[in-house]
Amino acid sequence: MESIPQAPPGAARPGGRTARTRERVLDAVASLLLEGGFDALTVDAVATRSGVHRTTVYRRWRDTGSLLADSLDAAREQRWRPPDTGSLLGDLTEINHQIVAALTEEPSITRALITASFRSPAAAHALRMFWEDRYTSAAVVIERAVERGEATSGADSRTVLIASCAPIFYELTLMRSPVSEDIAERYARVGTAAAT
Amino acid sequence: MESIPQAPPGAARPGGRTARTRERVLDAVASLLLEGGFDALTVDAVATRSGVHRTTVYRRWRDTGSLLADSLDAAREQRWRPPDTGSLLGDLTEINHQIVAALTEEPSITRALITASFRSPAAAHALRMFWEDRYTSAAVVIERAVERGEATSGADSRTVLIASCAPIFYELTLMRSPVSEDIAERYARVGTAAAT
Repeated sequence: MESIPQAPPGAARPGGRTARTRERVLDAVASLLLEGGFDALTVDAVATRSGVHRTTVYRRWRDTGSLLADSLDAAREQRWRPPDTGSLLGDLTEINHQIVAALTEEPSITRALITASFRSPAAAHALRMFWEDRYTSAAVVIERAVERGEATSGADSRTVLIASCAPIFYELTLMRSPVSEDIAERYARVGTAAAT
Repeated sequence: MESIPQAPPGAARPGGRTARTRERVLDAVASLLLEGGFDALTVDAVATRSGVHRTTVYRRWRDTGSLLADSLDAAREQRWRPPDTGSLLGDLTEINHQIVAALTEEPSITRALITASFRSPAAAHALRMFWEDRYTSAAVVIERAVERGEATSGADSRTVLIASCAPIFYELTLMRSPVSEDIAERYARVGTAAAT
C-alpha cells in the first residue's frame, strides 16, 4: 500500500480539517473587521466568533497582524484572471471597475484592510504583497496590448497599471472624493496614455 | 476717536494673542502627533504641551478632530506657489519631488495626518480640502502648458495633476513601496501623457 503523504504541521490539505479551521478563522476575521474595524479584531474575539479553540488560534496565528496577513494570503491564493476585452482601454477600465466596486461596497473588506494597514505592519506588508501579485498577474494585459500595437514594446507594465489604478485608490481611500460615474474609464485613459 | 474694531470671538488677529495661542496649540498638535501618533493626541495632552489653559483649548477646538482640521487649515493659509520651471514635465516633477520629500522625511507630519485621517472623519475632510486647494492652485501649471502648446486646450487640470501625483501617494502611503530614485519623474511623465 502507498503510504499516505504526511502534511507538515499546520499545512492546509484542501478540504481537510486544517483547511476548514482556517476558513472558519478567516471568516471570523472578516466579519469582526467589517463590524467593528481594527479595534474589534482580537485573537480572543476571533476564537469566540469562529468556535475554534483559542489555543489553536494563538498557536497558528499568534496575533492580529498574522490573522490579517493570512486573510490577504488567502485572497492571493484565489485565482484572479485579468480581463481580456480586446483592447487596452477596455481591460484597464474593467480592472478599475473592479477596484471601484471593492472600495465602495458596503461594508468593504478592502477598505477595512487598508485602514488596518495603518495600524499593523504585518497587514501593511501583506497588502503590498497582494497588490504586487495582482500587478504581476495583470502584466499580460500590457503584453497583449503590445502585440496589438496599442502599447510601445518598452512599456513597463507595472507603471502602466499603477498609472491607471493609483488614482482610483487615491481618490477613494485617501482623498475620499465622491465617486463619479466616469472615474474608472477616466483613469484607464491615463493608463493607456502612459503605455505609449 | 475711531472705535477699535472688535474681532469676533476666536478670530485670529495676525500677531495678536489669539494668533499666538493658536500657533502654540498647533505646534503642540504637530509634536504630539509626530511623537506618538493619533493615540497620543488628546485635548489634555495638547493643553499640557502648549501651556495653554485646557478650558481655552476645549472651548476653541472641542476635540481631536477639530485640532487636526485646524492644523490643515493653517497649512492651507500658508501661501504655496506652484513651480514654474518652463516645462510641464519640469513642473510636475518638481511637485512630485515635494510630495516625496513630505512623505519620506522623518518624522513626517504629512504621513501622520494621513494615518490620522483613518481615525478621524474631521481630519479626513480637512485633508481632502487641503489637497483640493493645492490642485486648484496648481491648475496654472497646466494653463501655462496649454499656452506653450505642451497640453491640449481641453486638458482637465485636476485629472493631469492627479495622474502625476496619485501614484506617488499610492506607492508611498498605501503600498509602502521602497522609494526609487526616479519615482517623481516617472509619474510626472504619466501626467504629461495625460495632458495631451
